[in-house]
Amino acid sequence: MDTATVQSEFLQQLFAHRLLIPSGVDGLYGRGTWFERVVEGIDAAVQRIGAPDNAEALHFPPVVTQHNYQLSEHFKSFPDLVGVVRGFRGKDKDHLALVEKMERGEDWAANFGPTGVIMTPAACYPIYPTLKGTIPPEGKRVTVLSYCFRYEPSLDPARLQMFRQREHVRIGTPDDVREFAATWKARGEQLFKELSLDSWSDVANDPFFGRVGKMLAANQRDQGLKFELLVPITSREKPTACCSFNYHQDHFGHLFEIKLPTGEWAHTACVGFGLERTTLALFKTHGFDVEKWPATVRERLKL
Amino acid sequence: MDTATVQSEFLQQLFAHRLLIPSGVDGLYGRGTWFERVVEGIDAAVQRIGAPDNAEALHFPPVVTQHNYQLSEHFKSFPDLVGVVRGFRGKDKDHLALVEKMERGEDWAANFGPTGVIMTPAACYPIYPTLKGTIPPEGKRVTVLSYCFRYEPSLDPARLQMFRQREHVRIGTPDDVREFAATWKARGEQLFKELSLDSWSDVANDPFFGRVGKMLAANQRDQGLKFELLVPITSREKPTACCSFNYHQDHFGHLFEIKLPTGEWAHTACVGFGLERTTLALFKTHGFDVEKWPATVRERLKL
Repeated sequence: MDTATVQSEFLQQLFAHRLLIPSGVDGLYGRGTWFERVVEGIDAAVQRIGAPDNAEALHFPPVVTQHNYQLSEHFKSFPDLVGVVRGFRGKDKDHLALVEKMERGEDWAANFGPTGVIMTPAACYPIYPTLKGTIPPEGKRVTVLSYCFRYEPSLDPARLQMFRQREHVRIGTPDDVREFAATWKARGEQLFKELSLDSWSDVANDPFFGRVGKMLAANQRDQGLKFELLVPITSREKPTACCSFNYHQDHFGHLFEIKLPTGEWAHTACVGFGLERTTLALFKTHGFDVEKWPATVRERLKL
Repeated sequence: MDTATVQSEFLQQLFAHRLLIPSGVDGLYGRGTWFERVVEGIDAAVQRIGAPDNAEALHFPPVVTQHNYQLSEHFKSFPDLVGVVRGFRGKDKDHLALVEKMERGEDWAANFGPTGVIMTPAACYPIYPTLKGTIPPEGKRVTVLSYCFRYEPSLDPARLQMFRQREHVRIGTPDDVREFAATWKARGEQLFKELSLDSWSDVANDPFFGRVGKMLAANQRDQGLKFELLVPITSREKPTACCSFNYHQDHFGHLFEIKLPTGEWAHTACVGFGLERTTLALFKTHGFDVEKWPATVRERLKL
C-alpha cells in the first residue's frame, strides 16, 4: 500500500473505534474518551520524568499576541502555517449585510479586522516574551502544555491542524542548553522504550517556506540544531517525529531581549512531545483496544 | 471605588502574585502554577459530582468548522464576539510583500483567506454536529472541557478573551432536559457552598447583538431559558456568572438534525462551569495564597 492509503485507512479505523471523531475538515477531529485518556497518560508520564528539573509550570491559552508573534519572526519562516484571528467590528446594518453574504455562500469574513491575536504556532512561543530582562545565574526552566495550530489540512492522522505539545524549555548559557538536550534525549528514549515503541533519533529540519527556506533548512541540519525521536506510525520508511528538540542559539534571547547575568543574550532550547502523535503511535503499535495493551505500557500510563 | 477600579486593582494583584501573567493584550493572560492547579482542581471536582451521569467524555480542539459554525447561527446573534481563523496562501513574492507590509506596521493579514475554522464560541458547540441522526430512547449525555474565544478586550479579569468551560450537555426530551437542569443546579449550588463561595442563582440572558438582540434577550429571560449561579468577584452588586445553564429547546436539535425516536427534534441543554471565573472567585474570596485557604476548600480541590 502507498503512504496515502496507509494513512487514510488508519484514520478510518480511528473513526470506527471512536478514538477520533470526524468534523468535516481534514486534520481537525474530536477525541474520544480513550484517545484522550492516553493523551493525559502520556502528558503525566512526561511530567514525572521531568519532575527533577523543578521547571516552573506555566499555562497559556492557545493564542499569542500579534505583537509577540511579529517579534518572533515566525511569519518570515512559516507563513503558510499561520492562523490569524480576525473579528467583526460593525453596526446593525453591516451585520445584516454579512448575514446575507453568508447565506449566499460568500466569504463573509473577508473584511474582518485584526483582533490582536494569532494561533499559537508552537507551545513555547508565549514563554519567551515573559522573560525579558536578566535571568538568574542558574538560568530558567519552564514547562507548558498548549494546543498549537498549523494550517496544513491532511489525511494523515499524525498531521493535525490542531494538536497539543508538552514542552520543556531551558533558558541559559550554551552549556546549560547542551546539558538539557542530552538529558531530555535520554529521558525521551527511555520513555518510548518503556511504552514499547520502536523509536530512533535523527537530525531534522523545520519546514521553512520558499526558496530562502531551503537554505535555512540546510543550515539547521548542518549545525545539528534540530533532532527528533522518530516512531513508525505510517511505516518504518516514513516515521513520525513524536518528540522534537530545537536549539535556537540566541535567536529568541535576542528577539525578546533575554539576557544572561554577563550581559550576553541568553540561549534557549526546547523539547516538545507531540501528545496526539505519541498517542497515535501507541494505538498503531499496540492496537485499538487499550485494555489489551501490554500491562507494562498501561502501568506506565496509569491506564 | 468604582467597578473599573476594583477590577483593574484585582488584575494588578493577580499579576503581582504571579497568578496571571500579562501578555500586552487585555483579557489574554498566562496562568501561573497555582492558578492552573486551582483550575484543574475545580474541573476535577465538577467531574466527580457529575460522575453518576456516566456522560460520554469527549474532547475537541478549540476551533469549530466554518460549516458547523454557520449552521449553528451563532453569527446571527453574536457577530461581535466571533474569532475567524484566516491563513496565507501565496508564493515567494507574495510572502516577501507581506513581510515588508509587516515591517511598515500595516495590516499584513488583511487579504488572508478562510482556513475553514472558527474559534470555539462555547465548549458545547462541537458536540451537536456529531449527533446528527436519531438518538436512543434514553437520550445522550456528553461532557467536554474546551477553551472558548470571545473578542471582548476588557480589564475585568473575569472577562477573558480566552477561557475554559467544563460543560455537561443533555440531549433528549423536554422532560430529560428539565430533570438535568434541576439536578445540576443543586450540584452547582452544593459545590460552591463546599468551596465557601457566596453564591445565588438568577435568570439571565445572553449578550445578543444589536436591535433584534434586545428582543431575543427579553424573550430568553421571559421564558426562563437561561439561569446562572452568581458569585461576587468585583462586588455583590455586580456579581459574576461562574456557572451557567442554557436550555436551547429544539434549536440545536433542528439545526443539526438530531432526532428523538419519535421523530421529533431533540431538545438540548447545557451547564457550563467557568473554570477561570470560579478560580478568580476563590482567589478573591480566600486570598492569593492557596496554602492559607480554609482546609475544607483545599480538601475539596485536592490542593
